[in-house]
Amino acid sequence: MKISCKKNELLDNLQKIEGAVGVKTTLPVLNNFLIETIENKLHLTATDLELTIKCSVSENINIIDGGAITIPAKKFIDIVRELPDSDITIDVNEKNNITVKCEKIIYKIMGLPKSEYPPLLEQKKETVNFKVNKALLKEMIKKTIFAVSLDDTRKILTGVLLVVENNEMKMVGTDGHRLAFIKSAVGKTENTKIIIPTKVLNELQKFLKEDEDNVEVLVYENQITFKFDNLVITSRLIDGQYPSYEQIINRIFDKKVKVNTEILTKAVKRVSLLAIDKASAIKIKASEGKLLINATTADVGEAEEEVAADYKGEEMTIAFNAKYVADVLKVVGTEEVEIQLRDTMSAGLVRAPGAENYLYIIMPVRI
Amino acid sequence: MKISCKKNELLDNLQKIEGAVGVKTTLPVLNNFLIETIENKLHLTATDLELTIKCSVSENINIIDGGAITIPAKKFIDIVRELPDSDITIDVNEKNNITVKCEKIIYKIMGLPKSEYPPLLEQKKETVNFKVNKALLKEMIKKTIFAVSLDDTRKILTGVLLVVENNEMKMVGTDGHRLAFIKSAVGKTENTKIIIPTKVLNELQKFLKEDEDNVEVLVYENQITFKFDNLVITSRLIDGQYPSYEQIINRIFDKKVKVNTEILTKAVKRVSLLAIDKASAIKIKASEGKLLINATTADVGEAEEEVAADYKGEEMTIAFNAKYVADVLKVVGTEEVEIQLRDTMSAGLVRAPGAENYLYIIMPVRI
Repeated sequence: MKISCKKNELLDNLQKIEGAVGVKTTLPVLNNFLIETIENKLHLTATDLELTIKCSVSENINIIDGGAITIPAKKFIDIVRELPDSDITIDVNEKNNITVKCEKIIYKIMGLPKSEYPPLLEQKKETVNFKVNKALLKEMIKKTIFAVSLDDTRKILTGVLLVVENNEMKMVGTDGHRLAFIKSAVGKTENTKIIIPTKVLNELQKFLKEDEDNVEVLVYENQITFKFDNLVITSRLIDGQYPSYEQIINRIFDKKVKVNTEILTKAVKRVSLLAIDKASAIKIKASEGKLLINATTADVGEAEEEVAADYKGEEMTIAFNAKYVADVLKVVGTEEVEIQLRDTMSAGLVRAPGAENYLYIIMPVRI
Repeated sequence: MKISCKKNELLDNLQKIEGAVGVKTTLPVLNNFLIETIENKLHLTATDLELTIKCSVSENINIIDGGAITIPAKKFIDIVRELPDSDITIDVNEKNNITVKCEKIIYKIMGLPKSEYPPLLEQKKETVNFKVNKALLKEMIKKTIFAVSLDDTRKILTGVLLVVENNEMKMVGTDGHRLAFIKSAVGKTENTKIIIPTKVLNELQKFLKEDEDNVEVLVYENQITFKFDNLVITSRLIDGQYPSYEQIINRIFDKKVKVNTEILTKAVKRVSLLAIDKASAIKIKASEGKLLINATTADVGEAEEEVAADYKGEEMTIAFNAKYVADVLKVVGTEEVEIQLRDTMSAGLVRAPGAENYLYIIMPVRI
């Protein structure tokens, strides 16, 4: 195999697939990128067997001799990153020795043959196939992914639920203490209900540009594929029964508070400096026209801040984990935020004022 | 005690003393800042008993009631950082409870009385007292500190040697494999030869502005004090006999290479990607008009880059630890750098072309 390409073009595309390279893998070849020529394109692939990212490059590529090789991923991307902004020639001999040349620099690196690379899953016919706007999918991921569990003991909660039904696409993230739900209309397609690992969603977040184009989403029996730009990203799904969330998001709240998002964000951050107990609890006391936010840590001290709020109901106090409140304020994206409450022992709801498509439920901390 | 001050003024000054707060200390009060009013000033102190930083603040301070208190340092600086850019009132009652108020925010923090704070070393009359320009001292630290040893088993090599003799000030850093030496003229003063811990030099680097003012340096029997701006920084010295360095810096070299600093820096960085053996060795082959830099790692591959150089002597090859070369190139500060060599088994010298005041010696790696 012999090709030449532009440094920046190659680096950009290697960075897109880098996230799928195996880290703690027992199969050494998974630490490598697969580089191969297919027709007039250069195909770059990385996989850890759970997540696979393929990228095809056709611009600024000159294929002198077709072929395929795998190359140590971390080493290769470090090399390309440090090379001058110029033409790179990659030349592979029959012993899998790779020569990388750029100006007066020569690297010789040992590769492994493509035959050692695991065959990627043959995809049967997909069960669901729909298109969704890039910016919208990015927003939906951002607004749910942060709420998933980081604890591997309940594997299903470490993923984001994707539901497609009645031409609506819904995403849910929960760790059992808080839940984020978002929905949006999509074109006509079959229904599905799957749990997607966060790893692939994190990669999507990184590389989904906020343009007008669509992502093509294909759901197979045990995997999901996202196609956009020059990328094909495939992930296995998480097996299992996701907890029922409909009841949680349909709760009725009788108290509504409206408050400036930025002011509340800062107040929560400041007060939480003194919320260093296990539950990191901050108390929120709603009374006419204001919220009083308070935290106390034994032997250290306490913090209290008053925030003006649009509230007319009866006085009530509730405590939440400070991080759970701060997390949603970071993503809600509106100047004001609406908090709905019932009583001290019941969950609270956070959303953009009046918005029905996104909501966030937090369980209270007992006080 | 009751004072009020501007948030930014307080934060700036707390950040200057923060580096001296004890971290792994068995004396809890060393985790605190000492805050006291002395005449019309607010004095802020932090110490880990090795390093003490005192800062006096007289601008934008309103002392309502004089006094002293110690306050948990990390917590307090986090609080001040998050407060709005406004007036802060600090009020301490007789039970050492501290109330910090700013706009509609109230913190109550438990302090410890000044009586628990260790009495800071009484300084006898200094033995040496001289002044040095801030920017110059900063440069001298920067150009030597990186060469010291990080290995605590030879304590003396973890510090920077400061020699004052014949109206010259000299600084030396070495880890036994490379040595950095810098000198500069100072005003008339007594001679001294002391070893300064890097911790205090790192703090100086952070807060020495590059203006025309001087730093006053006072050397006592077992400590050194630096006075500048509103700061008094005192550190214990490292006890022991520093190895003799004069012979090392007076070696004779018969081969001189001149090369562009930036080009060499990039080449060393690129080639060292394949220098991942224990010694991280890169081979440098000097021949007429060029350097050929090369690294090889078994089972991985090799890298080679040619760099144009001003060299006319006989061809020779020498190997250095790549990091030792990269380190000096970062600080030398000139467009070109001069490398002086003798033979494969002898040390090499790096300096700005023709400059006598700064030089750097590297021991070769056997090849």
